[in-house]
Amino acid sequence: MTAPSTLRGVFAPTLTPLKEDLSPDVDRWIAHCTRLLDDGCHGLVPFGTTSEANSFGMEERMDMLEMLVDAGVFPDRLMPGTGLCALPETVRLTSHAVELGCAGVLLLPPFYYKGVGDEGLFRSIAEVIERVGDERLHIYLYHIPPIAQVGYSIGLIERLVSAYPDTVVGIKDSSGDWNNLHNILTNFPGFATFTGSERFLLQTLRLGGAGTITAMANVVPRTLRRLYDNWESENAQALQADVDRFREALAGYSPIPALKSIVAFRQSDPGWRTVRPPLVEFDDAQTQDVLEKCGLCGEREIED
Amino acid sequence: MTAPSTLRGVFAPTLTPLKEDLSPDVDRWIAHCTRLLDDGCHGLVPFGTTSEANSFGMEERMDMLEMLVDAGVFPDRLMPGTGLCALPETVRLTSHAVELGCAGVLLLPPFYYKGVGDEGLFRSIAEVIERVGDERLHIYLYHIPPIAQVGYSIGLIERLVSAYPDTVVGIKDSSGDWNNLHNILTNFPGFATFTGSERFLLQTLRLGGAGTITAMANVVPRTLRRLYDNWESENAQALQADVDRFREALAGYSPIPALKSIVAFRQSDPGWRTVRPPLVEFDDAQTQDVLEKCGLCGEREIED
Repeated sequence: MTAPSTLRGVFAPTLTPLKEDLSPDVDRWIAHCTRLLDDGCHGLVPFGTTSEANSFGMEERMDMLEMLVDAGVFPDRLMPGTGLCALPETVRLTSHAVELGCAGVLLLPPFYYKGVGDEGLFRSIAEVIERVGDERLHIYLYHIPPIAQVGYSIGLIERLVSAYPDTVVGIKDSSGDWNNLHNILTNFPGFATFTGSERFLLQTLRLGGAGTITAMANVVPRTLRRLYDNWESENAQALQADVDRFREALAGYSPIPALKSIVAFRQSDPGWRTVRPPLVEFDDAQTQDVLEKCGLCGEREIED
Repeated sequence: MTAPSTLRGVFAPTLTPLKEDLSPDVDRWIAHCTRLLDDGCHGLVPFGTTSEANSFGMEERMDMLEMLVDAGVFPDRLMPGTGLCALPETVRLTSHAVELGCAGVLLLPPFYYKGVGDEGLFRSIAEVIERVGDERLHIYLYHIPPIAQVGYSIGLIERLVSAYPDTVVGIKDSSGDWNNLHNILTNFPGFATFTGSERFLLQTLRLGGAGTITAMANVVPRTLRRLYDNWESENAQALQADVDRFREALAGYSPIPALKSIVAFRQSDPGWRTVRPPLVEFDDAQTQDVLEKCGLCGEREIED
């Protein structure tokens, strides 16, 4: 029942490679983005949590997005993160993405104040929508309480969808809580619901969800795409198990440095390991350890 | 043992009055700031948590600070909040404050990623200091784990002070945990330690601390100043009890809307109640309730 204009599929919250001075390495970033699309991702989420989005400034984010589109990545495959704590800055980033033609934006709620109620969060999102004032705006709510602490309750989603049915069109649920995801999928059948954890991808698709936006898409896009394309096949459970193997291998590692280490290994480019503080990159020993766990150094490599 | 250049006293994290369109009402804000200094505050913290700092954009914050200084408030009485999640933006706000001549800055750690270690936080603060690259910079660490979730451990403070003894000169401890505050006061005797809760003010001063930066200074600056000036007198405990009465009256209320309601009442200016989302202003009934609790409507008014 998803409206034809909403996004579906496997989306990667793209890792952001850095130069030694911690500035974004745009060339390597665009190459990574292009590779992910070539390898099966339906679209990209520049500036998700995995992208270290909140460690970058407004200007950095807007400049990079423009360069990505200038490089030939179609904005109808882009859902950049645009939610910040400050209302005028969320409005500015969101308007910028809409003007570039991005198919959607992934919207964190304002996340500084804790314990705020649904009324205040509703007003925040409503202000963003009214101030952007553009019917091309399509918002995907970004629910990630383990990190943002502040999130979108079922009641708040309901209120936003009722008030702005053509604008608030989907959600990424990164709660890690199947019950919450299940509630969203069953309460909002017309909504484009993405699971933030690929381990729920098959279940999500079976309940009419839109797909997944997962950090793992940075390293196993083909594996995810195979499951997405074949979720109705007899093979689906085995394909889900292929997906799960990678997450299990990474369990316990800080995901952003771990994923950057894997890309660095595959690209033979140690500079890819660099992260911006407050994150800390993996050293050689940690890198070796994570590569072994993922089977990337031995004979039984996890293939993608 | 506090170095002569560090700040001491009663500081107010200034409330930010808004216009109906949610933009900062700079005239009313400057009037409030001036009144607080006239009423005994040693200095001001524009853009603390109580100021709704993180709900305002970079440009709003820099413009306001310039207007405050232009209005005649001496920057040697100012310690603006400048810590954001994104490194380049923290650097920009911090440099701006230094260039305006502000005596210090109150620095939140980057607060989006949770569970980050001291190494990454040390690198964040070190990057800010190196990039600002100005010996006039004086940083007061802003430790407020109940809201920011990310904070400064004793070990991290030690490392920062060792590496940057002339720059990292103080802290505001808003943990609400006396043991933590006590540890800071006893471990770092030369440090300018402010309690974020005025209920620890007397104890803080007795252990050589610098004073308090408390939301309550927006409404009872004289009461706080009396305690600060007379902490060695026989009367000190009674003066601390005067301070405590106000917090007890406000217990259970969302502090920012509550404090704005009190200022609105005193200034006969209902527009002062307005807050920016995700906060929600108090309605008439809530306002009446908080005024009664504070004794502001009855015969036994809590005086300041």
